[in-house]
Amino acid sequence: MKLVPRVRQPPRFDFTGGQVDVDTLPTAELRRDFADAVTTQLPALARDRDTRGWAPLRRAIARYLVGRGIICEANDVAVVNGAQQAIDLVGRVLLDPGDTVVMEQPGYFGASLAFTAAQAHLVGVRVDEDGLRIDDLARILRARRAKLVYTTPAAQCPTGAVLSAERRRALLALADEHQTPIFEDDYDSELRYEGAPIAALKTLDHAGQVIYAGTFSKVLFPGLRIGYVVAARPLLEKMVLARWNTDVATSIVPQAVLATVLESGGLERHLRRMRKVYAARLGATLAALELTMPEGTAWTRPRGGHGVWLTLPPGVDPEALAHAAAPAGIAYTPGDVFYADGRGTESIHLAFAALTPEAIHEGVALLANLVRAHGARRRGRSAR
Amino acid sequence: MKLVPRVRQPPRFDFTGGQVDVDTLPTAELRRDFADAVTTQLPALARDRDTRGWAPLRRAIARYLVGRGIICEANDVAVVNGAQQAIDLVGRVLLDPGDTVVMEQPGYFGASLAFTAAQAHLVGVRVDEDGLRIDDLARILRARRAKLVYTTPAAQCPTGAVLSAERRRALLALADEHQTPIFEDDYDSELRYEGAPIAALKTLDHAGQVIYAGTFSKVLFPGLRIGYVVAARPLLEKMVLARWNTDVATSIVPQAVLATVLESGGLERHLRRMRKVYAARLGATLAALELTMPEGTAWTRPRGGHGVWLTLPPGVDPEALAHAAAPAGIAYTPGDVFYADGRGTESIHLAFAALTPEAIHEGVALLANLVRAHGARRRGRSAR
Repeated sequence: MKLVPRVRQPPRFDFTGGQVDVDTLPTAELRRDFADAVTTQLPALARDRDTRGWAPLRRAIARYLVGRGIICEANDVAVVNGAQQAIDLVGRVLLDPGDTVVMEQPGYFGASLAFTAAQAHLVGVRVDEDGLRIDDLARILRARRAKLVYTTPAAQCPTGAVLSAERRRALLALADEHQTPIFEDDYDSELRYEGAPIAALKTLDHAGQVIYAGTFSKVLFPGLRIGYVVAARPLLEKMVLARWNTDVATSIVPQAVLATVLESGGLERHLRRMRKVYAARLGATLAALELTMPEGTAWTRPRGGHGVWLTLPPGVDPEALAHAAAPAGIAYTPGDVFYADGRGTESIHLAFAALTPEAIHEGVALLANLVRAHGARRRGRSAR
Repeated sequence: MKLVPRVRQPPRFDFTGGQVDVDTLPTAELRRDFADAVTTQLPALARDRDTRGWAPLRRAIARYLVGRGIICEANDVAVVNGAQQAIDLVGRVLLDPGDTVVMEQPGYFGASLAFTAAQAHLVGVRVDEDGLRIDDLARILRARRAKLVYTTPAAQCPTGAVLSAERRRALLALADEHQTPIFEDDYDSELRYEGAPIAALKTLDHAGQVIYAGTFSKVLFPGLRIGYVVAARPLLEKMVLARWNTDVATSIVPQAVLATVLESGGLERHLRRMRKVYAARLGATLAALELTMPEGTAWTRPRGGHGVWLTLPPGVDPEALAHAAAPAGIAYTPGDVFYADGRGTESIHLAFAALTPEAIHEGVALLANLVRAHGARRRGRSAR
């Protein structure tokens, strides 16, 4: 599995995400807040290395989460190095070798890597246009005892599907019935461009079964690596204990930077700007796909997030396509990366966040030509 | 085991380390470098999330390590969230449950926590005034197969002993004979106040058996949480792979801050200042102990580092002393924290880095009175 395609020349059309361009960079105003954090504020915080996270940041995050409908206080929050560390810590404290974890397939590869590192047994649950399929999950949970269900309800990774309200209630009922904790990875929830925001699953969690994690790396910049986790206190305390021997605490420097822009309102302004920028990029992606992709190509139409999940027409050889795409200057994430068992080769993930609408139009058209060329060749061959 | 004593009032005499005061804070000049890193440089680096660490920082660290006699290039270095994460990652990739790890006792509690989390079997090797005892290690390695030897040769944690040149050669010969990798935790090597600096063990490591780790959190400020690890490429690559699912990468923000002060020379100037400040604090600690401690008290006389290892006179009840110290405004780390098996209660660790010479004199005198009081009472009781 190739997580980050490495090429010597940066691709002209980079649909792998993780990039930042001039329109999505924190503005000079925001960067002045950053500077303040490491100059005037440093004396007050240099001594801090609270494994739970810097208290002022935890307070700011608790306030921030009210916007997602989550009522919690600073002591319910732990700061982590991005949502990935929250997943890893849950794996460490909750899972024993051989334990079953249920996760969406396709699903976030970082979660399957962390659970595999914890020697868990992964069981995939199917997803459709309403997100995780509850009937499938119910069947799985009846058949075997699962220690954890991992899900991305706000924007299913990688399809972008939003878990429906009905399924949310059913999911929590199942969790209750089987006493199985749920990991809600809310990595992308800030980036919704259409329709009313859906409250987090956590807001419906009266039994304290939901472990809620999010990140600021998606809305600020990939290298920030700051996230948070909200969980029932006993579990949170175990995670914080395990955290200590992992890496003691998150660096105070990005914590201070983030706390400053949360407090100043700079993050909210940045988010408003990003929603417009990314909405235009999503719109360009969907329009370009509609315009150029050959018949038989299918793709999701997310209302938020960073990417589109595309399924190639039957007959296109995904490996040949990938080999043709790289020299053409196109990078994307192959679909099998989102499956723990090698499936998904017929799909690809197009992250549009790092490309301007113009580049998206050009890149998608180029990709469509390649899809056509490879589908045609393949059909030609099989007709012989 | 109580890692960080929590008290409501901050203690007047905090000998637990981890603090920063006005004399040890990064200067305004250094903080201007920090600000530059997060303002003008951010556009260039926001997109970076190289799991190995930001390339310019890895290059700067490789150059920095020349000063310790280590010849390596950027690709031999991985940036980690402090030395603790290097220890944790080695535990993850090198150790299977039940594997034996040999480590100094007393020794760094963070290492024993990480190795215990990896379900390793810890075997203690004794230390004396020349550091790790090679005769003891040879006996252990003959008796059982060890997967790793963990050591702090520059300033044995917590005694401050420097591993002698002769023992260094013998240690590497043993590692070679038994094909056992050595983890050299060089957390404190920058802070030497007397005598010629001793080159790292790694400089003698022609077979590539030494995993070398260090940190900048000790010389800059505790909340920085940036360290590095240098190891043979195959192992380093495994660590970087394991790192990805732990937390993807170190935040670019403190990486940029650190790279800037490494490049500007600001770190070197800060270090020169810190060596003077800490040398005065070590001197004050040793002088105050000499002046005030009752007969029968023993302590180490390190030539570097942050602390002194003190052994209470026979007859002093360590628990009673600890109970008396807290209300008197004195905090220190009890010796058993540095043992994996509960030994060490007769010792305490006095970290002097966060206290001025005046406060050290006052605090040590107060502690000496308590030692005397508790020793006297105890003798009184036993005489009855």
